[in-house]
Amino acid sequence: MKFRNKFSTIILVFSVSLNAVANAEQSTQAQSPAKATNTNSNNSTAEWRTVDIEKMVLLTLPHGKVVIELAPQFSPKHVSQFINLTKSGHYNGNKFYRVIDGFVAQAGPEDGSSADREVPLLALEGEWSTDKNWSFTLVQNNDLFAEQTGFKDGFAIGHNPSENKAWLTHCPGIIAMARGNEADSGSSHFYITNGQAPRYLDRIMSIFGRVIYGMKHVQAITRTATIEGETEIPSSAHTAIISMKMMTDVAVEEQIHLAVKNTESELFANKLAERIKRDNAFFFKKPPQVLDVCQTPVLTKLIQK
Amino acid sequence: MKFRNKFSTIILVFSVSLNAVANAEQSTQAQSPAKATNTNSNNSTAEWRTVDIEKMVLLTLPHGKVVIELAPQFSPKHVSQFINLTKSGHYNGNKFYRVIDGFVAQAGPEDGSSADREVPLLALEGEWSTDKNWSFTLVQNNDLFAEQTGFKDGFAIGHNPSENKAWLTHCPGIIAMARGNEADSGSSHFYITNGQAPRYLDRIMSIFGRVIYGMKHVQAITRTATIEGETEIPSSAHTAIISMKMMTDVAVEEQIHLAVKNTESELFANKLAERIKRDNAFFFKKPPQVLDVCQTPVLTKLIQK
Repeated sequence: MKFRNKFSTIILVFSVSLNAVANAEQSTQAQSPAKATNTNSNNSTAEWRTVDIEKMVLLTLPHGKVVIELAPQFSPKHVSQFINLTKSGHYNGNKFYRVIDGFVAQAGPEDGSSADREVPLLALEGEWSTDKNWSFTLVQNNDLFAEQTGFKDGFAIGHNPSENKAWLTHCPGIIAMARGNEADSGSSHFYITNGQAPRYLDRIMSIFGRVIYGMKHVQAITRTATIEGETEIPSSAHTAIISMKMMTDVAVEEQIHLAVKNTESELFANKLAERIKRDNAFFFKKPPQVLDVCQTPVLTKLIQK
Repeated sequence: MKFRNKFSTIILVFSVSLNAVANAEQSTQAQSPAKATNTNSNNSTAEWRTVDIEKMVLLTLPHGKVVIELAPQFSPKHVSQFINLTKSGHYNGNKFYRVIDGFVAQAGPEDGSSADREVPLLALEGEWSTDKNWSFTLVQNNDLFAEQTGFKDGFAIGHNPSENKAWLTHCPGIIAMARGNEADSGSSHFYITNGQAPRYLDRIMSIFGRVIYGMKHVQAITRTATIEGETEIPSSAHTAIISMKMMTDVAVEEQIHLAVKNTESELFANKLAERIKRDNAFFFKKPPQVLDVCQTPVLTKLIQK
């Protein structure tokens, strides 16, 4: 009985949301035509895309380092403000003051402090308009929360062709701006999703990046939410941000260089088509031929410079 | 600008998968008829169900305590064997040897050891047959992976009326038996899901319980999976199980007593109906009126004895 090896198979082939699992990648080549449509003709052969260092943020926590890839192509104003705040040192020392297992880890400056009050408000960037020339890598039609799901530039998206709208979707590990009740009330407080995707927040929040490295450290941020009957967590125990820096501002020897799977490649589309078929012997009975975009990995690898 | 307070609203009202969030519970009463159907008439008024101590397992990790509620009503043979193994000390000292962020934490005895080889194989308990008298609390029709989703006795389930089949579904925090390629090849190695629900495993694995307390400690189990370019994690660094005990075998002063939301109550059904409407002012635009069963909390509270 080799459960370890046997069950490995499934992990090797089919794991995992997020990104911390390059060794979970299947090495076999695709053997079937892709079901995905609309893939970009750009970069259609490259398996990996090197992440632009100017789009990477290094979030240093007491227990480890986290790298975020920003998405200026989808949420330019939020990214621009986040970069300005990061460069100004706004987030250094901030606490993760609302951390709920299975939902979000949220951080920001002390409520009502001058650092908090002086940040300009941002107009919501929850979705964008598409036209017939717009393309993406299709994952699933008739998803519960969207007419279509897929990937664009490594980011999980929803797409409603009937509305000509697309949006970044709340899969685990996205970073988005918190806000008040008004649509255009975000400024600097942000959250990172840490559990089952809260997709009811899609289109009404501004997602502006995703964790591409160190998600395990996000998962280890001290929870602030307690259950009935439990002792409250004192604010002194909240996890602090040691530093938030643009990767370009990190000393060269401490920079982390990363590549992620090129979701615009034919290879990636082929892998999706393979994944949905579950041809591995482990599947003595085939599951429904559907994919949850948030449970479809876009792997990361470290690059030595 | 009170993002903290404002964004709290959404958490207070709408969070969270799993269980560690009693303070995320909305206190207002339901104001609309429930959409859920088929709720049991038993216990229809009790908001909480005290978890039977004989069904609770205390998993002690180096960094914290985890409580699992077993589900003998759904997977009697797996529960029976798991209890026997637990009582015999089988799991004490086992390592979590395969831990992948966003997927599973898997543990068991050393591969090929006598402890491993001597455990009887189990027949799969991946689903059960339903009849017209079978009832559950409906969450969603036409879910991506099931004709219906819902809850039964606090457990998230899928249900296909067209097949008269129902099953426990792979939401975050379930415990299931690992197996080889053969359906009936599970024995003692188990996994706990720690990320976006891998629901393609539904019906072909045997889920036999769920974490009702301490999921944050499951999330902090050392990952064994690395990405390309990263240093391997030595097995000496794998998280060990300090002890696995039936709660009845734990010294009285160290027992943890818990109650969970009574998913068979009218109150719970009403909350689901409320949740789907998103009436809170935070939702300046309403999301689709659908619910992901794995992102629908069944809260836990501590009981002092």
